[in-house]
Amino acid sequence: MAASDWPFPERFAEREFVSEISRRFATDDPRVHVGIGDDGAVLRTSMLTVAACDPVVEGVHFTRGDPVQLVGRKVVNRNLSDLAAMGARPSFLLVSLLLPDWLSNAGRAKLLRGIQTAAEAASCSVVGGDVARTPGPMVVTVTALGEAPKRPLRRDGLSARDALHVTGPLGGSRLGRHLRFTPRVAEGRWLSEQVEATAAIDISDGLLMDLSRMLEASGEREGCPFGAELSANTIPIAAAAVKAAKQSGEDPMTHALTDGEDYELLFGLREELPEEGPLTGRSRRAIGFVTATPGIFLRDRRGRTRKLRVVGYEHDV
Amino acid sequence: MAASDWPFPERFAEREFVSEISRRFATDDPRVHVGIGDDGAVLRTSMLTVAACDPVVEGVHFTRGDPVQLVGRKVVNRNLSDLAAMGARPSFLLVSLLLPDWLSNAGRAKLLRGIQTAAEAASCSVVGGDVARTPGPMVVTVTALGEAPKRPLRRDGLSARDALHVTGPLGGSRLGRHLRFTPRVAEGRWLSEQVEATAAIDISDGLLMDLSRMLEASGEREGCPFGAELSANTIPIAAAAVKAAKQSGEDPMTHALTDGEDYELLFGLREELPEEGPLTGRSRRAIGFVTATPGIFLRDRRGRTRKLRVVGYEHDV
Repeated sequence: MAASDWPFPERFAEREFVSEISRRFATDDPRVHVGIGDDGAVLRTSMLTVAACDPVVEGVHFTRGDPVQLVGRKVVNRNLSDLAAMGARPSFLLVSLLLPDWLSNAGRAKLLRGIQTAAEAASCSVVGGDVARTPGPMVVTVTALGEAPKRPLRRDGLSARDALHVTGPLGGSRLGRHLRFTPRVAEGRWLSEQVEATAAIDISDGLLMDLSRMLEASGEREGCPFGAELSANTIPIAAAAVKAAKQSGEDPMTHALTDGEDYELLFGLREELPEEGPLTGRSRRAIGFVTATPGIFLRDRRGRTRKLRVVGYEHDV
Repeated sequence: MAASDWPFPERFAEREFVSEISRRFATDDPRVHVGIGDDGAVLRTSMLTVAACDPVVEGVHFTRGDPVQLVGRKVVNRNLSDLAAMGARPSFLLVSLLLPDWLSNAGRAKLLRGIQTAAEAASCSVVGGDVARTPGPMVVTVTALGEAPKRPLRRDGLSARDALHVTGPLGGSRLGRHLRFTPRVAEGRWLSEQVEATAAIDISDGLLMDLSRMLEASGEREGCPFGAELSANTIPIAAAAVKAAKQSGEDPMTHALTDGEDYELLFGLREELPEEGPLTGRSRRAIGFVTATPGIFLRDRRGRTRKLRVVGYEHDV
């Protein structure tokens, strides 16, 4: 039925924009029984579902000058990174768009394109959500749903002497990497299904902050405090981090340890990391181990250790 | 492990608030394998899951003067209403909180309490989400997940001659009912499981607007235009709507047809509504029927019909 048959008021913008969204995210995914356009989506789900829900907020997670397509990509990938850290296979996305007046129609289209690109890269279907105007900063909130693996990767599974690993170089997030990272979905599934990883977390607030969270959660579970010793020799630092540190006069290692949004996985292992698998070259790094005493220490290239103060990017509330 | 064992920076507010959230929403729900506190929640889900995701935004869906506990209640119930309109049984909630500086710690606690009250009333577990500060208006976004019924209630299932019903009196939303409504969860499940309802929608933008959406979706599905004839005799008008209309000099019927957030269900029936069930008294109203020609008409008490202009509360973007 054409809209012209209808006594709709002249400006019916939500309807038109929702139609554009419906067209763009139309799917022949057989798991989607009811998709965009109804009160709720009806989805064929697995026995165990992993769910994560994170927003991006203008002025907090991006700035108005950032390419809006990358903002769309970031909010999807942020949530896929959470799924990756559980070892899940992403399936569905729900998207809530709060659009400010400054975002033009062209900007809206770019935002949708960024969301679509990231969703398609992970074989996810966008199945629902909401659109509204906001008098404030732009906010996009995504909920990601995925199939849980048999042994979901929790953050509280560390024990003393577990080796600590990361999936790639750290730092450089503030130089723009936070908009362009690739969520470690394949790596997370491999760590859960093929490797006996004891625990995992995605680094979203800096290595030190997220490591301290893993240690604390694991310590609470075990009823005893854990700490860690990290090795300056092996912590992989992104080239962009070295550059950023040079510009600011900061120590590159400090930058790599505390830069906010790496979106690499930090994980624990009791056994050796298998040679075969997605982690090769620079994405294959043991960075230290868990200790049975509290505190995080860094062993430098000359073998001396110093205690680190846990700082990172925390969106303080 | 006590936080004091740790070299955390002095102000570690997100962590503390997240701890408070974890305590408040701790659950022994056996369907929750991993709840709040990890990268993602791990949930036992049914074969078919219904998912909905709606925000509330300060200045759009509530004002700063509104009791913040009711704001928490509203955002949960808004999403439960979407699940109700599909006939689903609510199971899990994910909550993204974007907190402005004006919200005190006491205000935050009230917000959590409102969310908790509404979740508990629907036997839902809050299983995850995110907390961040916002430089703009307060935003709370909820994703609700539920078990789909065998025949989910879609909005596009109407046919000509279907009777149209609502689950309760309309209007009065602007007088505060939009913060205090009860989502029609039991009614939605009954309509799906016990009654052969052909279609349903929850009235969130006014009866006329949401009816036009159902008619349009159904018409697109059938490939022919649908309209409706409503009866002024039987459309139930809330007492608050009569009062509001008197105050503003508006016609009570117009108010009831276009007031925004009723959160009653509007549904279609090919058969008679059974006598037994949750719909009795004023919540049992046939308000008209579907026609095979476009346009929504109102038959007044003297039997005359006039065409209605479809207006309502649309959060224009």
